[in-house]
Amino acid sequence: MGESIPDKAVIEKAHKLITPYIHRTPVLTSQFINQLAGAELFFKCENFQKIGAFKARGGLNAILSLSEEQLKNGVTTHSSGNHAQAIAFAAAKVGAKAYIVMPDNSATVKVNAVEGYGAEITFCPNTPEDRQGAVDKIIEAKGAAFVHPFNNYEVIAGQGTAAKELIEDVGVHLDAIIAPVGGGGLLSGTALSAHYFSPGTEVFAGEPEGAADAVLSFKSGNVEKAPYVKTIADGLLTPLGPKNLEIIREYVTDILTVSDDEIIAAMRLMWERMKIVVEPSGAVVLAAVLKNKEVFKEKKVGVIISGGNVDLGKLPF
Amino acid sequence: MGESIPDKAVIEKAHKLITPYIHRTPVLTSQFINQLAGAELFFKCENFQKIGAFKARGGLNAILSLSEEQLKNGVTTHSSGNHAQAIAFAAAKVGAKAYIVMPDNSATVKVNAVEGYGAEITFCPNTPEDRQGAVDKIIEAKGAAFVHPFNNYEVIAGQGTAAKELIEDVGVHLDAIIAPVGGGGLLSGTALSAHYFSPGTEVFAGEPEGAADAVLSFKSGNVEKAPYVKTIADGLLTPLGPKNLEIIREYVTDILTVSDDEIIAAMRLMWERMKIVVEPSGAVVLAAVLKNKEVFKEKKVGVIISGGNVDLGKLPF
Repeated sequence: MGESIPDKAVIEKAHKLITPYIHRTPVLTSQFINQLAGAELFFKCENFQKIGAFKARGGLNAILSLSEEQLKNGVTTHSSGNHAQAIAFAAAKVGAKAYIVMPDNSATVKVNAVEGYGAEITFCPNTPEDRQGAVDKIIEAKGAAFVHPFNNYEVIAGQGTAAKELIEDVGVHLDAIIAPVGGGGLLSGTALSAHYFSPGTEVFAGEPEGAADAVLSFKSGNVEKAPYVKTIADGLLTPLGPKNLEIIREYVTDILTVSDDEIIAAMRLMWERMKIVVEPSGAVVLAAVLKNKEVFKEKKVGVIISGGNVDLGKLPF
Repeated sequence: MGESIPDKAVIEKAHKLITPYIHRTPVLTSQFINQLAGAELFFKCENFQKIGAFKARGGLNAILSLSEEQLKNGVTTHSSGNHAQAIAFAAAKVGAKAYIVMPDNSATVKVNAVEGYGAEITFCPNTPEDRQGAVDKIIEAKGAAFVHPFNNYEVIAGQGTAAKELIEDVGVHLDAIIAPVGGGGLLSGTALSAHYFSPGTEVFAGEPEGAADAVLSFKSGNVEKAPYVKTIADGLLTPLGPKNLEIIREYVTDILTVSDDEIIAAMRLMWERMKIVVEPSGAVVLAAVLKNKEVFKEKKVGVIISGGNVDLGKLPF
């Protein structure tokens, strides 16, 4: 496993490795939203990615980077959502056994999806200690390889391939790229790709006010806790990983926070005008752009939409 | 205006004319839906098109094909929906005045969109006679050029460019293409493009049981009325135009009807699995594929999604 910050060649290799298994998701534009934002926005639609989210990239790169020897006892992780699906999906692709620890309050649809990929699920109470404890037991009993959801350089390199494709496909120089931040896997990978493949492009993050740990950690340099955790953007609840924080401190320009009302308004705008199904975590970035018009004024901005896994029966509008 | 069935060069010219003004919409695939269908489906996403529907193509080609002389007194049409927006949008692009006749029960959001393009709206009772009468008055008073929503060769050639792009972008030979049928503009254009640009590709249509006129006209050779008109697919209520019927009789293999329940189930499947916002009329085609698995078994099938203009406050699920 990688022991240092992925360099350019590592991200290029990750991209080659995972390309046969992923969608090269399209980049969409909307004249209406451009006018609203006063900027030119290029939306990288990872909501169309395998498993419905960018996490397929990091999960695949982590699993495909393991040796046969490392894979023979299977892989394990803990996650209530997209990372669980990503690891189950990636393990199935290489014929490895996946042991997934999920909190016992996980959404049925996500549990079903993980089972659909043939993974073995262990349920546990939804605390960080119980989750890690259950994973530790699996590692001890099975010898499975652990893939952390974000504090892992292979995962970071994999997530960075979304921005790499965006940069390649837009065909013009982007002044900025913005990605959502939860644990920081996508943001740190995005920041590295911008640095290597589009020098001069600034990287921003969008974060919910109701899980505003990254903005604090970004300032202090230590992994901080959010003042409170309550947001509709349920993919962004996790605090930053230390590996992610180090990269983000080095390569990210700013982290912009938005309220749940702003997230819901941006989400609705994307559904109505772009005709795409975006989860709240995926709408955080547009919300941040619309809230900070002076930052992005007349700029060309890449906007990474993280995913589209949302329960149609529980829409906030 | 074109007086005969568009030939290959006419569709190529239409494509060149409209390309600067339209999105080259992406082609999406879904492994999950492929497995469900037992076929390999390539979805051409015209829900991402300008104005949210393929009609931007035909409207643009019709307007851009008019001479300065013909445009100087403006253009006119009648429509409650996407064609009204298409003509208003296209007229704005060439700086021509648009006079749009809309039924007085048109959805506010569509009226606002037409006004947003600077068109002048005349309201009338929602009968074919009142609509045509209002247009005739405008033609007499203003000398405006009339653009029929589908019984018009420029419109047909324009709509055919969606299938042309699909054929170009898929990169493999398609065994079949399926499009929805209302007035028949999209279906007849699709059939011509398949014939010219992908010989051997069969063309099918999906039609709601609650507006099943095309399937009757296809058999009899005359423009028939639907036995009853009541369907959630409100973009497909219109009977075929005679120009459309002639092309469809020549180049279409079959028209497959589906119930509203089947349309709603296909629509939900596309929202949930493909993460795209599709209107009921756009889901008719997938419903038809899933209902007729033996017809498409193990085939490569292009599926044209007509549009994504739907009221998020009134979803059928």
